[in-house]
Amino acid sequence: MNMWLLSRCEIRFEIIAPTPLILMLRPRNTAHQWISRESYIIKPNVPVMEFIDEYGNHCQRLVAPPGQFIVRTSAVVQTERDILVSSGAPFDEIQNLPNSVLTYMLPSRYCESDRFVELAHQIVEDITPGYDQVAAINQWLQNNIAFNPDSPYFQMSAVEVNQAQQGVCRDLAHLGIALCRALCIPTRMVVGYLYGLEPMDLHAWFEAYVGGRWHTFDPTQSEPRGGRIVVAYGHDAADVAVFNQFGPALPPVSMSVAVELLNKAPE
Amino acid sequence: MNMWLLSRCEIRFEIIAPTPLILMLRPRNTAHQWISRESYIIKPNVPVMEFIDEYGNHCQRLVAPPGQFIVRTSAVVQTERDILVSSGAPFDEIQNLPNSVLTYMLPSRYCESDRFVELAHQIVEDITPGYDQVAAINQWLQNNIAFNPDSPYFQMSAVEVNQAQQGVCRDLAHLGIALCRALCIPTRMVVGYLYGLEPMDLHAWFEAYVGGRWHTFDPTQSEPRGGRIVVAYGHDAADVAVFNQFGPALPPVSMSVAVELLNKAPE
Amino acid sequence: MNMWLLSRCEIRFEIIAPTPLILMLRPRNTAHQWISRESYIIKPNVPVMEFIDEYGNHCQRLVAPPGQFIVRTSAVVQTERDILVSSGAPFDEIQNLPNSVLTYMLPSRYCESDRFVELAHQIVEDITPGYDQVAAINQWLQNNIAFNPDSPYFQMSAVEVNQAQQGVCRDLAHLGIALCRALCIPTRMVVGYLYGLEPMDLHAWFEAYVGGRWHTFDPTQSEPRGGRIVVAYGHDAADVAVFNQFGPALPPVSMSVAVELLNKAPE
Amino acid sequence: MNMWLLSRCEIRFEIIAPTPLILMLRPRNTAHQWISRESYIIKPNVPVMEFIDEYGNHCQRLVAPPGQFIVRTSAVVQTERDILVSSGAPFDEIQNLPNSVLTYMLPSRYCESDRFVELAHQIVEDITPGYDQVAAINQWLQNNIAFNPDSPYFQMSAVEVNQAQQGVCRDLAHLGIALCRALCIPTRMVVGYLYGLEPMDLHAWFEAYVGGRWHTFDPTQSEPRGGRIVVAYGHDAADVAVFNQFGPALPPVSMSVAVELLNKAPE
Repeated sequence: MNMWLLSRCEIRFEIIAPTPLILMLRPRNTAHQWISRESYIIKPNVPVMEFIDEYGNHCQRLVAPPGQFIVRTSAVVQTERDILVSSGAPFDEIQNLPNSVLTYMLPSRYCESDRFVELAHQIVEDITPGYDQVAAINQWLQNNIAFNPDSPYFQMSAVEVNQAQQGVCRDLAHLGIALCRALCIPTRMVVGYLYGLEPMDLHAWFEAYVGGRWHTFDPTQSEPRGGRIVVAYGHDAADVAVFNQFGPALPPVSMSVAVELLNKAPE
Repeated sequence: MNMWLLSRCEIRFEIIAPTPLILMLRPRNTAHQWISRESYIIKPNVPVMEFIDEYGNHCQRLVAPPGQFIVRTSAVVQTERDILVSSGAPFDEIQNLPNSVLTYMLPSRYCESDRFVELAHQIVEDITPGYDQVAAINQWLQNNIAFNPDSPYFQMSAVEVNQAQQGVCRDLAHLGIALCRALCIPTRMVVGYLYGLEPMDLHAWFEAYVGGRWHTFDPTQSEPRGGRIVVAYGHDAADVAVFNQFGPALPPVSMSVAVELLNKAPE
Repeated sequence: MNMWLLSRCEIRFEIIAPTPLILMLRPRNTAHQWISRESYIIKPNVPVMEFIDEYGNHCQRLVAPPGQFIVRTSAVVQTERDILVSSGAPFDEIQNLPNSVLTYMLPSRYCESDRFVELAHQIVEDITPGYDQVAAINQWLQNNIAFNPDSPYFQMSAVEVNQAQQGVCRDLAHLGIALCRALCIPTRMVVGYLYGLEPMDLHAWFEAYVGGRWHTFDPTQSEPRGGRIVVAYGHDAADVAVFNQFGPALPPVSMSVAVELLNKAPE
Repeated sequence: MNMWLLSRCEIRFEIIAPTPLILMLRPRNTAHQWISRESYIIKPNVPVMEFIDEYGNHCQRLVAPPGQFIVRTSAVVQTERDILVSSGAPFDEIQNLPNSVLTYMLPSRYCESDRFVELAHQIVEDITPGYDQVAAINQWLQNNIAFNPDSPYFQMSAVEVNQAQQGVCRDLAHLGIALCRALCIPTRMVVGYLYGLEPMDLHAWFEAYVGGRWHTFDPTQSEPRGGRIVVAYGHDAADVAVFNQFGPALPPVSMSVAVELLNKAPE
């Protein structure tokens, strides 16, 4: 069963000096979502170069001029109402994995999987290798790491999240990714939108490769939920910043996100 | 100077049996155009898979079900009002060409450049190698090959176009490409929209790589004209069919194309 | 069952003026062959740049200086003694083909598959779609097109080969490819070495994608034979010239090829 | 000025249970080195699949069987006797960087560049942005972090190396990379061979992108030295492990490395 969603995102900056920016705010077509309508407005209307990075993400390069700078995107997307739950789906032997997923077993900036071998094995003790292990890790995160959208911590790595025992969505995803990779399960970060998220914001979760395909997991939600729009994939948040200004931090003046359910396909 | 264009395209088919289709109807962001709004409607609303081919084109795969089948796309695009004219820009020595453009010196299905070495050299005799050669070829096409949007010939290659001495836009582009490649100038096919084209339709032209960048040439127009929206690049029409059904010909029941000038940037 | 082969190739040119060359003489590792030893000597020892093209081939760029110019390569390769024969393997429905093989259904410079729909269907009449169709086409080539290594014709396309009713290995491959593509079977050109080929030379054959994988076919051989070393893949000979000088023809002064069977693995 | 080197590497494992391995031991052709001869022996002779990863590295996949397992490679390589020193080469403005180098400004597993902004700016205070900054960082590493090939620490990240004040070659490279990226200079890890290294071993260093090209830096050497053979590039050691077994550590029983100077080109 599919559903149609309308996502909207507006980010406002106050720029002091001309600032090169790389944005990643265009959702991508995947096997499970179809972008039927899209709008991408930049004000003022500076030149933009788009390229596709090594993960297949659409990236927009520009130089933001001094003054108010606004990025406003929207998309009408067909996506899955429910995510696939594949209890019992087996672990994929490493020698059988596609070349393209191997990179997602490596440790990365915010997912030091090499430090989680012991904890990961404790969590999944006696559980059949594969999907059920990832589900157990996801459950462990829900039981042990508080989802706190107002977490006071900044840009924690999985090791730090495990110590803080709380975090925003990206923090929980980072710890989930690190734990899965510690079991040699390819796992990647997803940035996107989730219909019905409270409070509404850009969201992050993770996908694990078991039983021959990617499966969605979201430790911030008590039940498996569909209604997701994928914007970008990467090893972790370092790869999928929705805006990256390379230099002194550039906090937006405001950021608003909305996701609506549409009751029919666009005409 | 830039301009904002709104392109629209609607193609209707009557499908007899389920038909796998590959469409190439999503304009792409390039160094010289920015897609600010886009819509891509398929009726009935069958599943679509999008992938990016080896030329960077966005391709949509689907299976069209029996009955009326409609594809309707539109885009709001910022593009250049004028195309760059670089008289005197030099020929790029082959050893200095980027790896990525080398393939555009090879002969291809509809551009048998290996058969045009003599004619190409006749046309450009005494002309400085580079941009001016391509301009001379473009002028030669205008003088010698009639642009006939109602050409009775079907899917001619450059050799056949040269014999027929007339053709549709793609035919003229194929001959232009074959002649340029015969001079070792990388040349590629472009499919897209041209504002003000008479009669309005999807359009084809070519780009030649001289003076270190791609330059636009259009043998159907008496003056260099901007107002173009690039949909796809390829060696020739074989690579950039806007719809490809692999099997018995599938002529659309109707096809309508429109390009409007917008008087301001989208909000 | 595997076997170890030693291939050697030496090409000598007499260069008049500095000549940019692109060589494609380094065999590639594939799912079915492993390059254990390799040597690539260029005399005189000019700078070489290697890149990997869109087909995954290893290409060597250089500028050959005036005078005698020699390229000498050798490789020790583990390859399959027998090629896979998959009688009855089914035709892959287009909608199920991997994105990466779609391009091999398109017509190309020397394989005008769009002109062979009728002939292809005549040849395979009543034959189960898939492997058996390709085998029938291969058999038809053996029965109808003479393999003549001394063919007087130069660089024929499939249409011309079909008229000439004879050709060198690449000509037979081109016609085989055009016929298979006319049936919507992805088919690609292979350039490489064949152990036991008479007379010994660089060789060309084709691969068709049926039953979910590439299968080898060689219309110059009366029986399916292994002992092959793949150097390069492409749509047709335009993509896989072992040397390409882009400009006036540059016939080698001499070219020698040898393939030996080794009786054990290299140490 | 170029030189010819012969590199040799042999790694022996004792395998208990069948172990999937990914090796990265085949040097790659680059703009500055040419592999003229190569040998890659695996004993016992199990099947190997080679693929090219997203960094352009050649990776070999196999399953090592129980018992003694030996990998033995060698290569004859033409490389530069001296590395380019470009004092004064300017910092490349971010908006002018090629898309392909942007990823090398991101923090990575062992290079937490986001934690080094302050230290990096202290080190390069008053130094002209660009090459000279990287040279100052390299000098600072030589002055402050001891190169200790027998360092007792294991797999440190840049933060940990900075605390330990000593490390093996990869540790120094990681800290250098983190410091450069903190200045928005794209920087990548290199694994390879260095002629004359004491004690001889596989080696690691880094390259920084300034003045429009990659430049080599090696904090383990007191003077800029050429005689290098590049095997692989990556963000850091996570990407360029010469062997990766994904699971319990698999220390080699022995590993020997040699690099010889050849007094003439191979014939």
